[in-house]
Amino acid sequence: MENDYKALSPETLASRLSDLEVMKWSVGADPAGWSVREVGDGNLNLVFIVEGKAGSVIVKQALPYVRLVGDSWPLPLKRAFFEYHALIRQEARDPGSVPAVLHFDESQALIIMERLQPHIILRQQTMEGRKVEGLARTMGLFAARTAFRGSDLSMKAGDKKADAALFAGNVELCDITETLVFTDPYYDAEMNRHTTPQLDGIVAALRADEALKVEVQHMKRAFTSRGETMCHGDLHAGSIMVTHDNSRVIDPEFAFYGPFGFDIGMLIGNYLMAYHAMPAHIADEAACRDYQDWILAVIDETWSVYCEEFMRLWRTERTGILYPASLYEDQGHGFASEAAGQQLLGEIFCDLVGFAGIEMHRRILGLAHVAELDSLEDEDVRARCEAKCLKLGQMLIMNRNRLTGMDAVIAAARRAETGEQA
Amino acid sequence: MENDYKALSPETLASRLSDLEVMKWSVGADPAGWSVREVGDGNLNLVFIVEGKAGSVIVKQALPYVRLVGDSWPLPLKRAFFEYHALIRQEARDPGSVPAVLHFDESQALIIMERLQPHIILRQQTMEGRKVEGLARTMGLFAARTAFRGSDLSMKAGDKKADAALFAGNVELCDITETLVFTDPYYDAEMNRHTTPQLDGIVAALRADEALKVEVQHMKRAFTSRGETMCHGDLHAGSIMVTHDNSRVIDPEFAFYGPFGFDIGMLIGNYLMAYHAMPAHIADEAACRDYQDWILAVIDETWSVYCEEFMRLWRTERTGILYPASLYEDQGHGFASEAAGQQLLGEIFCDLVGFAGIEMHRRILGLAHVAELDSLEDEDVRARCEAKCLKLGQMLIMNRNRLTGMDAVIAAARRAETGEQA
Repeated sequence: MENDYKALSPETLASRLSDLEVMKWSVGADPAGWSVREVGDGNLNLVFIVEGKAGSVIVKQALPYVRLVGDSWPLPLKRAFFEYHALIRQEARDPGSVPAVLHFDESQALIIMERLQPHIILRQQTMEGRKVEGLARTMGLFAARTAFRGSDLSMKAGDKKADAALFAGNVELCDITETLVFTDPYYDAEMNRHTTPQLDGIVAALRADEALKVEVQHMKRAFTSRGETMCHGDLHAGSIMVTHDNSRVIDPEFAFYGPFGFDIGMLIGNYLMAYHAMPAHIADEAACRDYQDWILAVIDETWSVYCEEFMRLWRTERTGILYPASLYEDQGHGFASEAAGQQLLGEIFCDLVGFAGIEMHRRILGLAHVAELDSLEDEDVRARCEAKCLKLGQMLIMNRNRLTGMDAVIAAARRAETGEQA
Repeated sequence: MENDYKALSPETLASRLSDLEVMKWSVGADPAGWSVREVGDGNLNLVFIVEGKAGSVIVKQALPYVRLVGDSWPLPLKRAFFEYHALIRQEARDPGSVPAVLHFDESQALIIMERLQPHIILRQQTMEGRKVEGLARTMGLFAARTAFRGSDLSMKAGDKKADAALFAGNVELCDITETLVFTDPYYDAEMNRHTTPQLDGIVAALRADEALKVEVQHMKRAFTSRGETMCHGDLHAGSIMVTHDNSRVIDPEFAFYGPFGFDIGMLIGNYLMAYHAMPAHIADEAACRDYQDWILAVIDETWSVYCEEFMRLWRTERTGILYPASLYEDQGHGFASEAAGQQLLGEIFCDLVGFAGIEMHRRILGLAHVAELDSLEDEDVRARCEAKCLKLGQMLIMNRNRLTGMDAVIAAARRAETGEQA
């Protein structure tokens, strides 16, 4: 398969894709009239915007190595296959949540998809202190629907097992998560970096925390073993594109079968980092506080929408083999099914809190950082924000089974924020 | 594939297999000198003993339906493929624990394997009140080694994911477990049967226990989602063949990737049923008590051997991606890895107790019963034994996360036994 593969370039794209009907319809019949820009700012792939008289599309093509690092770190092209399969499942499970797929070419590791316009990356929006109307609702629904509808709560058992087997092939991208998220941050691994020397003390303390390292490996075991649903796999603030009132999810190439709470946990970890970074981005204290309150409200609402939607689907779409109606509703024991659903949400909550804490650690201690923090040029300022994230992450990981709810997470974040400032 | 398939018979076996080198070597060069007996007493397959001058072998062939029920219940031939793959993995992970595979023919769904001789099924041995020296040690080692070495604690991540994907194809046999073990027993499903009317009251109470039904479905979720290791999948007392001092494991066609505690839980559930059945099999009270004590000692030792072996492998073979030495031993934090291993064993214990309880329920309420109980012709006697099992099962499922260890399970079994007799 990879023999036919050839990376596109702005110069070759039009001639190579001009025969595709979908390009004629979506961009324009005459490829001479197409304009092509490579805009990939991610770590892994080529991304082109192709514009013409009829409109514009995104052409995304995997490279056979990690773009951020170069060809010394090969990465298989099949990740485009998993991204394609994840996108069409997400579209089916939460219509409109992801860019429409217009074309997939497996041998070229290439996906042509809807161009989201005028969307920008959520992270940029956040750093500019701009809110997104409906963000919490959209993401809560997305996380709940993809979680529920990709699981044994909803799917036929054979379909779910076949799907889990298919995504089990996404080994190399899972390996990135297994290594860079769950392992490297907790010891002095080669690819790590952190703000030094300001954070050296707290980083050393974290890596000396044996109980923490045990908990994180328990969570890693959940990541590798607990195939509850198809996860996006990389749902951070760079995988969400927004306008002032619309949010869409992109880039599910890390898709895998994992714990219900993984995606929403990563997402909330990213929100919490943004929360602690904001004072370095918004000079006006009242404006900053207002924006920070908005972030915490987004966290709170995302989880409450998730719970509400999950239970709605539980009551109306529980067609899978787990918790079957034959045992509950059909026996006049509908309240038991309600209890079971709420207990499951309780488990998901514990997981998401742990994953959030780990995401906060790896973005400060590991290879891949987040712009909210990394863009802060004053290292003392940056380290101050990062230290809050590290401490909160540690608290969340260690206490994930004992918190009373999202209110407790939010209270802890507020305490980490003000405690450090005092 | 199934086009070429043709079921063997005692009449056709010799001519059909006479060209195989392995048969010439293992049975004899002249097929005219082979004697063939069909001895399958299980629910699913054809099993032949083929004897000749050079020795004897077992020829096991899957049928395209459930033998117990008939061709109204089709069951795919590929289960032989999974049995073959499970057998060679079990042999690699715990050498000598299973019959040696001599030949596998996928299109005929046929495995030729070592004949265990003079072994009989453990269940028969138990019903005759005969002990098996070394049973606990052999089974504890088998359960621990296959669990550990089939998991992300030991395997390369890509190998484990590929293997989990392979076994994900065993859909129909998993469906049997999902339906007959985890669901049907807990409501009035069509294929169920129980000793009636003696058990009607307790069965109705069990099926009215909403909290119990919730817990069982949580365990079912673990079964379908938690792909921690390759499980045997059907490790009951009919899947163990014994002499007075040797134990071997057979029939892993239900193999799947599931929870660490599944196999040992099913096994201990079967031991507990035998424990409660013994008074109906051994008339002499002292002899009976002695044998019952032996069964409880086997349970205790099986688990302690499991723990000991699991931790030995943890310390010496933890080569997988979970709990890597780079985080612990290499940092001078070896004690943290010890703590992590013990915590994991604690989780496995909770699971095994739950699975044991569920196994005890389904063997009395569901389709497939166990001979220790089912062979008791006096229905009052049988019901008395079964009632103890049902109550103990319920206690184990509901309290699995709160028991102090295997001593507590054993104490509960003793209490169920004497409490009912009083």
